[in-house]
Amino acid sequence: MDVRVFATPDTLQKGALDGKAAIVIDALRMTSVAATAMEHGCAGLLAVAEVEEARAAARQYGALLGGERGALKIEGFDFSNTPQEYTRPRIAGRRLVMTTSNGTRAILAAAGARRVLLGAFVNASAAARAVDGEAGVGIVCAGTLGAFTLEDALAAGAIVERLCQKTRAVRLDDMALAAHRLYRGARGDLAAALAETEHYGRLTRLGLEADLVYCLREDILGAVPERQADGWFR
Amino acid sequence: MDVRVFATPDTLQKGALDGKAAIVIDALRMTSVAATAMEHGCAGLLAVAEVEEARAAARQYGALLGGERGALKIEGFDFSNTPQEYTRPRIAGRRLVMTTSNGTRAILAAAGARRVLLGAFVNASAAARAVDGEAGVGIVCAGTLGAFTLEDALAAGAIVERLCQKTRAVRLDDMALAAHRLYRGARGDLAAALAETEHYGRLTRLGLEADLVYCLREDILGAVPERQADGWFR
Repeated sequence: MDVRVFATPDTLQKGALDGKAAIVIDALRMTSVAATAMEHGCAGLLAVAEVEEARAAARQYGALLGGERGALKIEGFDFSNTPQEYTRPRIAGRRLVMTTSNGTRAILAAAGARRVLLGAFVNASAAARAVDGEAGVGIVCAGTLGAFTLEDALAAGAIVERLCQKTRAVRLDDMALAAHRLYRGARGDLAAALAETEHYGRLTRLGLEADLVYCLREDILGAVPERQADGWFR
Repeated sequence: MDVRVFATPDTLQKGALDGKAAIVIDALRMTSVAATAMEHGCAGLLAVAEVEEARAAARQYGALLGGERGALKIEGFDFSNTPQEYTRPRIAGRRLVMTTSNGTRAILAAAGARRVLLGAFVNASAAARAVDGEAGVGIVCAGTLGAFTLEDALAAGAIVERLCQKTRAVRLDDMALAAHRLYRGARGDLAAALAETEHYGRLTRLGLEADLVYCLREDILGAVPERQADGWFR
């Protein structure tokens, strides 16, 4: 298995994901939200770029609305980007349309892949299992506003770690090697490893510590949202 | 001092280097070559993108020609991209025009910076000293053909390490934190840390082990080529 990690969506060169399975990561918080919603019975998730586009899709499909701008809930939306809000009573059997600043953009950037899956710390082992047997896996880190973020690289490293545990025949590109080594150095205390980073600090200042604690728990979920033929993740 | 590291030239967002001092790194091998040539008395180095452009500039300035395509010497050039060739008898007092696959491209991508310097393992401490007192430093990793390479990230980390030693008031962005941690994990044996990487493997297969040994030696040079008002590095 060839595993490549892309530090940001901008580093995806044309055709880089052709024929491959892509795992998109926005660990703080969009892909953690998506895995949580799916684990709790969400009937389908659509990722769109713009707020108005999200509102229109939600009307069309009778879906709930989730996401953020500037890390905060969007006017009139049902959910913010806090995974703990997506409880079974609120999300089971319902469709969900999401738009966020970074995660949904990264998902759209990875659209050329044969498969698109959503990964995070919370479903790292399940995401690795979901791509078992693939010849080529591209892990796409969302970053923040186009910039590299350490949390997504660490989550990519968490998935690389699990891929390497399953088989010895894993070839890593340089960014995958880097992500793997960063994860191995950090996994004892992910929060400490991220304490100096900008995005983590911003979410802390916004009072979202509970989100951070949740999103940094590894392997608490089995759900791995995957894009279906109709463009919805299930 | 704010220190940002850019994993590849493509991750340089518009204006990211405005007003800053940029240190461009292509540790294997172009910026190691440049520091070596300067240490040995080179009268000035011009980095250009294309081979024909290099030939024309060399004719115009009576300069020597150095560089590579596909890691190999270019037809009719005086030097390849092997730093050990740039001895004092051959380079002292002479101008040098260079074109390489990655380093010269990264230098051109960083052109918007207020200052542009060339760094590598061989002159890491000198490069850190050269930007002492700057408010903002952007370290630009050349990578290989647009892709992230671990060796440039490690060399960036080596420079970050020296910047952090000089002052406690260094703020690192996420990529700078990552590069620093990767370097700290690797500095005991840089060759071992790079053994699995693609570019290092390619240069080894081409029989360029001596270049690798040279380029991974830290702080053997005091020269830090810096772009002057006329566009030449001295």
